Amino acid sequence: MDQQSLTELRTFYASFGRLPLPGGTRVTETALGGVPALAITPPRAGDAAGTLLYLHGGGYAIGSAHTGAPLAAALADRAGLRALSLGYRLAPEHPFPAAVDDALAAYRALIGDVDPARVVLAGDSAGAGLALATTLAARAAGLPLPAAIVAFSGWFDLTLSGASLTAKESVDPLFDAADIAGYAGLYLPDAADPADPLASPLLADLRGLPPLLLQAGSHEVLLDDTTGLAARAAAADVEVVLETYPGSAHVFQHNHTTEPAAARAMDAAASFLARRLGVVVPQG
Amino acid sequence: MDQQSLTELRTFYASFGRLPLPGGTRVTETALGGVPALAITPPRAGDAAGTLLYLHGGGYAIGSAHTGAPLAAALADRAGLRALSLGYRLAPEHPFPAAVDDALAAYRALIGDVDPARVVLAGDSAGAGLALATTLAARAAGLPLPAAIVAFSGWFDLTLSGASLTAKESVDPLFDAADIAGYAGLYLPDAADPADPLASPLLADLRGLPPLLLQAGSHEVLLDDTTGLAARAAAADVEVVLETYPGSAHVFQHNHTTEPAAARAMDAAASFLARRLGVVVPQG
Repeated sequence: MDQQSLTELRTFYASFGRLPLPGGTRVTETALGGVPALAITPPRAGDAAGTLLYLHGGGYAIGSAHTGAPLAAALADRAGLRALSLGYRLAPEHPFPAAVDDALAAYRALIGDVDPARVVLAGDSAGAGLALATTLAARAAGLPLPAAIVAFSGWFDLTLSGASLTAKESVDPLFDAADIAGYAGLYLPDAADPADPLASPLLADLRGLPPLLLQAGSHEVLLDDTTGLAARAAAADVEVVLETYPGSAHVFQHNHTTEPAAARAMDAAASFLARRLGVVVPQG
Repeated sequence: MDQQSLTELRTFYASFGRLPLPGGTRVTETALGGVPALAITPPRAGDAAGTLLYLHGGGYAIGSAHTGAPLAAALADRAGLRALSLGYRLAPEHPFPAAVDDALAAYRALIGDVDPARVVLAGDSAGAGLALATTLAARAAGLPLPAAIVAFSGWFDLTLSGASLTAKESVDPLFDAADIAGYAGLYLPDAADPADPLASPLLADLRGLPPLLLQAGSHEVLLDDTTGLAARAAAADVEVVLETYPGSAHVFQHNHTTEPAAARAMDAAASFLARRLGVVVPQG
């Protein structure tokens, strides 16, 4: 991917940061472990219910805390949580493992402040992969793990082994296999192994991970990342809920205010988190 | 498997038919398309909410409408439905495709009586495979399909290709790979192809199937049947919900009155069906 294309993609994707937040949501700039973040308090956040650390998508190369905020706020609001949307460093300026380093630093700071049993991670696309990688890095560092993880259309396999990468090209409205390979090329330095579990959590030893909710649309080239991770995590005795949405596209949850399937997905994700945290969310 | 072992297994498994039903459940003997069945009306069944056709497990060789009744009644009660537990013919006396023929005849008769949009299928183990096979056979016959399918620890692959068949042998308290091969040998006549989609729905063209809920424990040699079917159905644009329960054994849902995980699984299955049918279930 050339610099001009990357700049254009970043500019375009920044518009996702202007999607509406739930009415009454408060957003303030902050930092977490030295990493910039947005602190998001949606109207239904309970005072001590829990904290969602949200990792935005964008192939590890585009996006920001702002582009993650609408999904983070919607999910947190429905689950009765406050949220932090993290502005981790991006490739190619800051290649792998910079994003993992930032997310782990943020997670470490967060659990210095709040009980990890009341922390949940979520992310979309590369951010969902990063949520898994962060949890694996936390496990390796001997840190307590979050209570649950939600992954919207996760990118878990930078070895690009999924059959869906080509099988779904004709129906994926957003990406083809070459696009995904382009993002992998930006994120991974020449010396990096795409099979490194922190780059490709699909290939990690997943034992001991917290409950996972994995959602994907059936019209995405990354579908096999989700179904493959579900199978691997289940085999590793992780509690897994996989939900697939026929005909939906990559991170269709962005459309939760307009598309019924996206609203159902967001509701299901919030219920999954609230149940793990024992949160009772006020209705309406 | 010799005749004495089979007789002993049938006698032992018949004891599952004495597991308790929800208090106040009415059970009467009936027939559906010439196939014997138990008509089950649990206390919370709505008059017109819908009908669950339940297909018991037992490797196509053991079990009965009675052994399926406790799971059918518990699931139907929580979903506000009435249920029919089918006594399809068993192998080796009646090998493949006798079970599929019986279940299709029963389904055909049922949808002659009630709106197929208010019919759901469920089953455990071989019965879950049979629920898929019945739906595939119904599709091939040009019949309207049921509104949803629930599969508890489904046996979907009689080619025995799953890595879990051996990988999970050391933790599966009930079966090893040889047991599963034994049941396949009883069900499939010498001339039958184990890859026939009506014997191995894993290998079927799954397009157009109704929403599927697939549950499995992580301590079962048949785990890959469930995760594999989830991946194949998702790729075929079917709405899939997969739930895996760490450390749980084959058809752990039998223990829903004593084990919290089994109760949660049963609740989730009932919610899945009730939502697809628009049923509001009275609490308590």
